[in-house]
Amino acid sequence: MSAILRQLPAESILYLGDTARLPYGTKSPATVARYTHRNIDFLIGRGVKAIVIACNTASAVLLDDLELPVPVWGVVEPGAEIAVAAAGGGPIAVLATESTVSSDAYGRAIRRLAPNAEVFGQPCPLFVPLVEEGWYDDPVTRLVAERYLKPVLDAGARTAVLGCTHYPLLGRLLDEVAKSLVPDERVTLIDSAQAVARRLAADLEALGLIAPIGGEPPRHHLCVTDVATRFQRIARDFLSHSHTFGERALEEVVSLELVEV
Amino acid sequence: MSAILRQLPAESILYLGDTARLPYGTKSPATVARYTHRNIDFLIGRGVKAIVIACNTASAVLLDDLELPVPVWGVVEPGAEIAVAAAGGGPIAVLATESTVSSDAYGRAIRRLAPNAEVFGQPCPLFVPLVEEGWYDDPVTRLVAERYLKPVLDAGARTAVLGCTHYPLLGRLLDEVAKSLVPDERVTLIDSAQAVARRLAADLEALGLIAPIGGEPPRHHLCVTDVATRFQRIARDFLSHSHTFGERALEEVVSLELVEV
Repeated sequence: MSAILRQLPAESILYLGDTARLPYGTKSPATVARYTHRNIDFLIGRGVKAIVIACNTASAVLLDDLELPVPVWGVVEPGAEIAVAAAGGGPIAVLATESTVSSDAYGRAIRRLAPNAEVFGQPCPLFVPLVEEGWYDDPVTRLVAERYLKPVLDAGARTAVLGCTHYPLLGRLLDEVAKSLVPDERVTLIDSAQAVARRLAADLEALGLIAPIGGEPPRHHLCVTDVATRFQRIARDFLSHSHTFGERALEEVVSLELVEV
Repeated sequence: MSAILRQLPAESILYLGDTARLPYGTKSPATVARYTHRNIDFLIGRGVKAIVIACNTASAVLLDDLELPVPVWGVVEPGAEIAVAAAGGGPIAVLATESTVSSDAYGRAIRRLAPNAEVFGQPCPLFVPLVEEGWYDDPVTRLVAERYLKPVLDAGARTAVLGCTHYPLLGRLLDEVAKSLVPDERVTLIDSAQAVARRLAADLEALGLIAPIGGEPPRHHLCVTDVATRFQRIARDFLSHSHTFGERALEEVVSLELVEV
């Protein structure tokens, strides 16, 4: 969401966080698809013009066979595109939740662009709870990162997709760990959030759906299905971009709602 | 559940695992209470004679004001009772999820038995994912356990409640870590599952609800709301007790069902 706020400052965002049923990454594809369909119905019912599924797990299980009245973007395709460009024919690692890895969604998206690409999926189930502990720069996190990165680096991957919305918060540590494991080589980490924000901006422009700069000032509405501590992170995320709100007070720009979906 | 199978070998168990909405430990009390009420309605609808809420988080938010047609046990009260007996007036640590710790359910249960008891709650959000990785005896888990145990041991606690169903799987490692942190003292870990199984057996006997030994052979029915990898652990748990099934084939004893609750 931060990436979209930065890339598309004139758009009003309706955000739905399914905090009551998080995390999706450990659930079966059928259950994730069921929840995601309900979430999409909710957003369409609220009149959105376009939808970004900003969750890798939900993108991974859903996007292949979706027909909807509004355009939908997942995070997998844009991330795969940047990864293929960065890898230059070399193998690509996908660091993600168990569910995203076992869906092979990145593998399929990458091979659509580069049929002979080698893709190594690495489930990293401890990264989300480590981020939620706030242990971004911590010996525990370093040890876990070494454990997860070593096999894919040993297999020759020098490009790694951060295939979960939480992982970019570990970007600096992962960079350092990669450097310590293969000191003489450059390892590129791909942030799929950045990738989807850029793609979204280009596509909205092409579809004639982009909000005009200088029009109605944007208002953002945050819906969550549970008000727990996780919600504070979402709110903080918004607040950290409050400089883009200019002279307007925060409560003029952002509103909150607890919903049942 | 293993503890109940061992303690009450003649009882038939209807098990409901809300795998689609796990984990409860990071959700708000209102959401956990809503889910738990639905789960209880489901079990009562299936005709059970008694209910054990074998989740600390759900027990913690729900049990204080519950009126139901069948008796219900949580894991908090029995765990608190054993902890008070073991602590002999000394301070008690409660290792649990964030939600259980912030509910102070153990603190309240302990102080009902020992009004002046000192209770130190320590949230351990990484223990569940570490158990799910299977890293029971691992340098990462050791480092995390030191981080979580040190403050409560420094504060003087020598009795610690394992306030989450996953934690007893780390029992041996936690014992070793405690020994390394306070080498000259004995630290007692309380497994609340054992405590509730013993209490349940005694209470069913007293209420005249216990199944007679030598009656109808027990049959167990496992309901889950999502069939994901977690489910395999539940099944394994059952299988590890299959010696108690005697001559009967597993499929005569255990049946499975996917339910929506």
